[in-house]
Amino acid sequence: MNVEMLAVGTELLLGQIVNGNAADIGARLAEAGLDHFRQTVVGDNLERIVSAIGEAAARADALIITGGIGPTQDDLTRDALARAAGVPMHFSDEYADHLRRWWERRGRPMPETNLRQAEYPEGATMIPNEKGTAPGLRLRIGTCWVFAVPGVPQEMLPMVEAHIIPFLVAEAGGTGGVIVSRLLRTWGESESRIAELLGDLYDAGTNPTLAFLASGGEIKLRLTARAHSGEEADRLIAPREEEIRGRLGSLVFGAGDDTVERVVLRACTEAGLTLATAESATGGMVAAALTSVPGASAAFAGGVVAYSGAAKVALLGVTPETIAEHGLVSEETALAMARGAARRFAAGVAVAVTGSAGPDALEHPPGTIVIAVVTPSGERARLLRLPGDRERVRTYATTAALHAIRLALSGAWWQS
Amino acid sequence: MNVEMLAVGTELLLGQIVNGNAADIGARLAEAGLDHFRQTVVGDNLERIVSAIGEAAARADALIITGGIGPTQDDLTRDALARAAGVPMHFSDEYADHLRRWWERRGRPMPETNLRQAEYPEGATMIPNEKGTAPGLRLRIGTCWVFAVPGVPQEMLPMVEAHIIPFLVAEAGGTGGVIVSRLLRTWGESESRIAELLGDLYDAGTNPTLAFLASGGEIKLRLTARAHSGEEADRLIAPREEEIRGRLGSLVFGAGDDTVERVVLRACTEAGLTLATAESATGGMVAAALTSVPGASAAFAGGVVAYSGAAKVALLGVTPETIAEHGLVSEETALAMARGAARRFAAGVAVAVTGSAGPDALEHPPGTIVIAVVTPSGERARLLRLPGDRERVRTYATTAALHAIRLALSGAWWQS
Repeated sequence: MNVEMLAVGTELLLGQIVNGNAADIGARLAEAGLDHFRQTVVGDNLERIVSAIGEAAARADALIITGGIGPTQDDLTRDALARAAGVPMHFSDEYADHLRRWWERRGRPMPETNLRQAEYPEGATMIPNEKGTAPGLRLRIGTCWVFAVPGVPQEMLPMVEAHIIPFLVAEAGGTGGVIVSRLLRTWGESESRIAELLGDLYDAGTNPTLAFLASGGEIKLRLTARAHSGEEADRLIAPREEEIRGRLGSLVFGAGDDTVERVVLRACTEAGLTLATAESATGGMVAAALTSVPGASAAFAGGVVAYSGAAKVALLGVTPETIAEHGLVSEETALAMARGAARRFAAGVAVAVTGSAGPDALEHPPGTIVIAVVTPSGERARLLRLPGDRERVRTYATTAALHAIRLALSGAWWQS
Repeated sequence: MNVEMLAVGTELLLGQIVNGNAADIGARLAEAGLDHFRQTVVGDNLERIVSAIGEAAARADALIITGGIGPTQDDLTRDALARAAGVPMHFSDEYADHLRRWWERRGRPMPETNLRQAEYPEGATMIPNEKGTAPGLRLRIGTCWVFAVPGVPQEMLPMVEAHIIPFLVAEAGGTGGVIVSRLLRTWGESESRIAELLGDLYDAGTNPTLAFLASGGEIKLRLTARAHSGEEADRLIAPREEEIRGRLGSLVFGAGDDTVERVVLRACTEAGLTLATAESATGGMVAAALTSVPGASAAFAGGVVAYSGAAKVALLGVTPETIAEHGLVSEETALAMARGAARRFAAGVAVAVTGSAGPDALEHPPGTIVIAVVTPSGERARLLRLPGDRERVRTYATTAALHAIRLALSGAWWQS
């Protein structure tokens, strides 16, 4: 079962939004063991949508289309489906009633344009949308099952999970086997250095395959096995993972969903310590990453975003003398910020980030970041020079701060 | 000049990363007035990369390929280019020397796999990479100019901006005119309601075109004009923008790059007020959004992430009695948090967010968020019920908190 994706929306071509839907659906196809070799994006143009549907339907066993089925006039996917299938459009009185009741329950008049959503190409089955008003559609074109779902992720994803994936797995007859991926997360070495350390494993075989991925300052390794069952895939992956972990040692800090923020929170919980943050250059991003984890409150006490020098003094107890003598961007000030956060939140562990994120310099060139960590075993600060623009510097500094906590808790601190 | 894009990378198909490169390049093509109708994604598979290159080269005048030219063994774009063009591969001794010097300057031994980056298909021109070691490539296949650039955005984007876009604009003979887009940002009404208010304008013409885009709780409108010059495009867009602003009134809060965080910081600066934040459920996201704006320190004093009840008491001066009587998720506690932040940071304006982001309930069902704002003119709090999972609730709450500040500063507070 070979599944393609087609995203419809001029805003994607103009770069006003990214195609996150493709990633969300791609992950679910992989989990279900469904092959997925190609994604396409076209704009809100009837001819080009029809062409893209026709080409994909000729190549693939199934096509999932996202976007273009909303209530507005630039929503053309329904019309394109009818055209590509060569069938007329019908109107569902039943769905029109459903729409009217949906708006009634919200005590608001229904904009008439919503009735477009009650149209469907002949032969199509509607897919229920629990989170919105646009129904999905399922239609056979030639030998290809074609699905249309909304572009809004919160409506799209439940429909894909509840209706489309199970339908495709059943169509595949359950004989397609599974594709299992194992993600190993590393931090501290370059992509090419890691590729060299693992080069022979890359060449060694195709099941599992090995891939490299750089993002946000971390290098991730992906092992992907194809097998008849999840257990068989796990047996293929396990020895390869063991070999990789043996070679990379402490560079590997987590696997799968073990993001560094999760690893840090777990390490704090296991050590019976709470955690606090004191941020200047990262402006709340370290705290936001930590609190993105459900249940973060078990270990995360809180943080201060001390953007001004005055705030560093008033909220974190950094002395004006420390700032005057060493500067805002210094190991001394960062350590004082971390100590202050630990004290104010009565936390066992605290991290502080100060620096010059750019574009303007602050005492040092943009990209100069100082990170300090205090734990019950000691304290340490380090000055980093990070490349890139304001957004990249802040992202890398956030990652580095989280790893600094992780290393400090493991007793490794910074190695070099 | 019709330009297509092809992204190469199995990690895109497996959903491990999103194709942000397509959005970044798409925005630059639009600015340059270059047509862009289609994007494709394929995995790290030689046959499929070769097919996708061949199809795009037959359809388009230019093709920009991102990814697959790094140093590791799964980087196949160079080989696929040679195959698609039907030419042999050569090795550049000159570039190999450049690579060795690059690593020498960093005082580290060069992993030998890097030498792959000195290979190029016959007839290809190398495009300099100022930020990394993988050079780009430019090659003619049939009537199509094909470019290959790295997948790492920080390396790719400067190469596209400095070398590819100017080359394509020159090839187009400067006669292609320009495409100018104007983005209007609204908050406070549903997409279908806004589409209804503007339906006749949508139908009215194709130059400028009107499109609707929902994201993060905001509805954006995009007017796109095609003209011989930027001035002519502006003259086409201006009356349509005026008409839209007349109909939508205060729903429109900004245009172009005027994100709500920029609007808020500007309003504070103009009023001579500094701003502080007190966050619980959003865990630092409001502060992170504000500090993403360069120069935020002129108006943003700082914030407290008071994740625990104890932190709300210790750092924001919320009384235990307030929490005991009204709960952590209440208008009273939110107001006390905002007052505390204003006091601690000596700020004229403060916003507070508390609530239940989920997945577990906190006093109220997940999605219950309370936002409070204090300004020199008064104070106000409001309880919201937001749909979706933890990530969506936190994102919407962040947007709502920023708009609450904006409305308070304009004297409008919340309307309904």
